[in-house]
Amino acid sequence: MTADSPAELGRRAQAMLDALAAISDEEGRITRLYLSPAHRRAADLVARWMREAGMAVSEDALGTVRGSTPPGAPGPSSNRRYLVGSHIDTVVDAGRYDGMLGVVAGILALQEIAARGIRLPFGVDVLAFGDEEGVRFPTTLASSSAVAGVFDTADLDGARDAAGVSLREALVAFGGDPDGVASAAYPRDEVLGYLEVHIEQGPVLEIEDRPLGVVTSIAGQSRFLVTVTGDAGHAGTVPMGHRRDALAAGAEMILAVEEIARAGREHQMVATVGRLSLEPGAVNVIPSRVSFTVDLRAATDPPRAAAEAAVRHRFRAIAEARSVAFLMDRYHDTPTTPCAGRIQDAFARAMGDLGLPARRLTSGAGHDGHAMHALCDIGMLFVRCRAGISHNPNEYADAGDMGLAVEALIRALTALADGEGEGST
Amino acid sequence: MTADSPAELGRRAQAMLDALAAISDEEGRITRLYLSPAHRRAADLVARWMREAGMAVSEDALGTVRGSTPPGAPGPSSNRRYLVGSHIDTVVDAGRYDGMLGVVAGILALQEIAARGIRLPFGVDVLAFGDEEGVRFPTTLASSSAVAGVFDTADLDGARDAAGVSLREALVAFGGDPDGVASAAYPRDEVLGYLEVHIEQGPVLEIEDRPLGVVTSIAGQSRFLVTVTGDAGHAGTVPMGHRRDALAAGAEMILAVEEIARAGREHQMVATVGRLSLEPGAVNVIPSRVSFTVDLRAATDPPRAAAEAAVRHRFRAIAEARSVAFLMDRYHDTPTTPCAGRIQDAFARAMGDLGLPARRLTSGAGHDGHAMHALCDIGMLFVRCRAGISHNPNEYADAGDMGLAVEALIRALTALADGEGEGST
Repeated sequence: MTADSPAELGRRAQAMLDALAAISDEEGRITRLYLSPAHRRAADLVARWMREAGMAVSEDALGTVRGSTPPGAPGPSSNRRYLVGSHIDTVVDAGRYDGMLGVVAGILALQEIAARGIRLPFGVDVLAFGDEEGVRFPTTLASSSAVAGVFDTADLDGARDAAGVSLREALVAFGGDPDGVASAAYPRDEVLGYLEVHIEQGPVLEIEDRPLGVVTSIAGQSRFLVTVTGDAGHAGTVPMGHRRDALAAGAEMILAVEEIARAGREHQMVATVGRLSLEPGAVNVIPSRVSFTVDLRAATDPPRAAAEAAVRHRFRAIAEARSVAFLMDRYHDTPTTPCAGRIQDAFARAMGDLGLPARRLTSGAGHDGHAMHALCDIGMLFVRCRAGISHNPNEYADAGDMGLAVEALIRALTALADGEGEGST
Repeated sequence: MTADSPAELGRRAQAMLDALAAISDEEGRITRLYLSPAHRRAADLVARWMREAGMAVSEDALGTVRGSTPPGAPGPSSNRRYLVGSHIDTVVDAGRYDGMLGVVAGILALQEIAARGIRLPFGVDVLAFGDEEGVRFPTTLASSSAVAGVFDTADLDGARDAAGVSLREALVAFGGDPDGVASAAYPRDEVLGYLEVHIEQGPVLEIEDRPLGVVTSIAGQSRFLVTVTGDAGHAGTVPMGHRRDALAAGAEMILAVEEIARAGREHQMVATVGRLSLEPGAVNVIPSRVSFTVDLRAATDPPRAAAEAAVRHRFRAIAEARSVAFLMDRYHDTPTTPCAGRIQDAFARAMGDLGLPARRLTSGAGHDGHAMHALCDIGMLFVRCRAGISHNPNEYADAGDMGLAVEALIRALTALADGEGEGST
C-alpha cells in the first residue's frame, strides 16, 4: 500500500458515505433510527470496512461497533488506546454527513496510518455509535454513555419508542445483549482520549472560508418552557389600554431573549424561541395564554447562567408592565463539555502542517463527546459544511475538505504520540 | 295594565332571558346555532311572547320572527314603521344576553308602550334574527341581510355547514321557504329606522360606571394574514448575527401593530394578533416561517386605512432590517357603519330623562345593524356587562341596567315620535 493524498482520501470518504446513504428505513430518503433494520445493515457495513482495514471488530451491548487496532509499540502506553468515532444513526429525512463522516474518517485514518507504516505508541479503536440523534427513544447518547460507563440501565425498560417497544426489546431484536451493559464500558485507565471528526452544522467556517476548525467545547445548553397568562377578550371591544394580551407580552419577551443572546457574542451565546403556541387562537380574540420554548447555549457555563438570570429579570419587568403572569420552567440543563487543550493543540498542530491556521470555535450542537467526557479527555475537529445546513437532505460537505479532515486526524494522532513521552494524559 | 318601573322591567327581562337560556342544542350549556332544533324552539317561544304582547306574528323565509304592532296614529308616518330587534342564535357555549336582550327589550318596550296607552305615529315591528353569530354556516347576518333586501341567494346552495347540509336544506327543515327570500325584504319607503339594544361586550361602560351608552358607529374592520419567511437553522450552531429568524421578525411586527393601534386611541382603534403558527416548530430549530392574523378596527374608515398603511410600512422596514420576506394579505374588509345622528339623539334624550349623561361610544363588535344599514338609518343602545365578557357562560348584565335599557328604548321611540312632525327621516 502507498500513502493516499488528502484529495484521494476525500474521494474514498465520499464513496463510503454514499454507500451508507443507500441504507435507509425509508424509500427515497435517509432515515436510520437507532436499532432499526437500516441501523443493523449500516453497522454490518461499517464492521466489514473495519475488518478490511485490518481491525478486530466487535459490537457492544448497546450496538456500538468497535474496530480495534493492535496494541501500541512497546512503551508506557502500549496497552492504552485512543478512541475515534461518531454515530451512524440519523434523524428522519437526514443528510449523509452528520455522524457518518466521523466513523468513515476514523476507519480511513487508521487504514492510512497502517499503510504509511506509522507505528503509534498506543492502540486506537474506532467506534460507530447508534443513539446520538435521540429520535426513536426518549434517550440520547445511550450508546456512547454505555461506552463511557454512565448509561442508566433503568432506560432499558423505561424508555419506549412510539410503537411501545422498549429499548431492551429493540436491543435484543438488533442482536445486542441488554444484560451486558457493564461490559460495554472501557476501563478508565485504558483510555487516553476520544477524538471525533464532524461537520460543523453551522455556517461559521464557510463564512470565513476555512475547511476545518478546532472545537474548544461543546456548548452547555438550557431549555425553558415559558407560559404567559393574560386575559382573553373581544378583539373589537376591549380598548388597547385595558388589554392583558399574552401574545404582545410574549413578543416583547422573544425580542428580549434575542437581545440578551446578541450581547453575549463574545461567549458564542445563542438563544432560540423555536416553538410557540397560544390560546384561544381565534382571529377576533385577544390571546389569553402563550407558551414558548427558549433554547440557550454558550461556550462556557457562567455567561449562560448570567443570561438566564438576565432573561428572568427582563421577563419579570415585561410581565409587570403588562399585568400578565408568567412561568419560566428550566426543563433541561447540560453543562459545557470542554475539549482538552492537548487534543485541541494536536488538531491545531495537524492543521498547521497542512498550512491551515487553527480556527477554534465552540460546538453549539451536542455530540457523543458530551457522554465520552465522563470517561476521558475529548477533542473534536469540525469540517465546513454548506450554508450550515444539517438534519436535512441538503446537508453537504466537500470531498476535498473531508480529505483534509482525515489527513488532520492522522497527523493529530501522530502529534499525540509525540506527546506520549511527556505523560500528558 | 299599569306602567312597570325600570326595576320591574329588568326583572321581567331577566325571567325571559332565563327561559331562552334553557333552550339549547347541548346539555349543560347554551348553544343555539342558526336553524337548529333549539333555534326552532327559541323562535316559537319568542313568537308566543310577541302574541301575548298583542303583536301580529309571522316568520320570514330566512327564519326571522317578526312581531308587528298596528299602524301608527293617523299622520304622515302612519303606514311606516320602526324596526326593533336583535338575534336569538348563539355561539357555542354562549352566555344568555348577547342578542337575546335586544329581542326581549323590544317585546317588553312595545308591551309597555301599549300598557301606558302611548299612541305612536308609526308602527313598530320587533325582529328576532337567526344568523348573527355566523357559527354554523360560512355566512353571517344572512337573516338581517334578507330583511334589508341584500341577501345573496347564491348562499342558499353555496353555503353548507360542517355536516354538508346546505342553507336551503336547513331552512326547509326549519320550516322556512328558501324561494320566498325576496318577500323577506321590507320595502325601503316603509321603514323609518332600526333600533337595537345590546350588551356592550366590552369593558368601557363598566369601567366608567355607566349602565347605558349610545353607539356612534359599528367599527369597520380589516383582517390580514401575514406570513414571514426567513431561514431555518440549528439553534446551537447559527450565530445570532447570521440568523434570519422568522419568529423574531414576527415578534417585532406584533409589537408594531400594538403601537400603531395605541396611537389611534382617539379613533377608538384596536388591533389584535389572535392567531399565530410557525414552522418547523422544534425547540432546537430557528423558525423559518411564521403566519399570524391581524384584526384592525376603528370608529371611522380613514384612520383605519392610515393604520393599515402604517403597519405595512413598519413591516417592510422590519423585514428589510432582518432580511426576511413577508406577505400581508387583506382577506376581509368591512366599512364602518354609522349610527344615524337623530337616533343617537333620541337615545341620548331618553337617557337624559332617566338622569343618565349620554356616553357615546363605538361598537367594536359587528351586529345585525351592519346589514340593516343597507335598508335604513340605524341606532344602537349599549348595556353595561360584567368585565366586558361575552361569548362565554360568564357573560352577565345586571337586571337593573336591563330595565333602564327597556325604559330608554320606550322613551327613544317616543322621542322619535316627537321628531316626526319635522319629517326628520
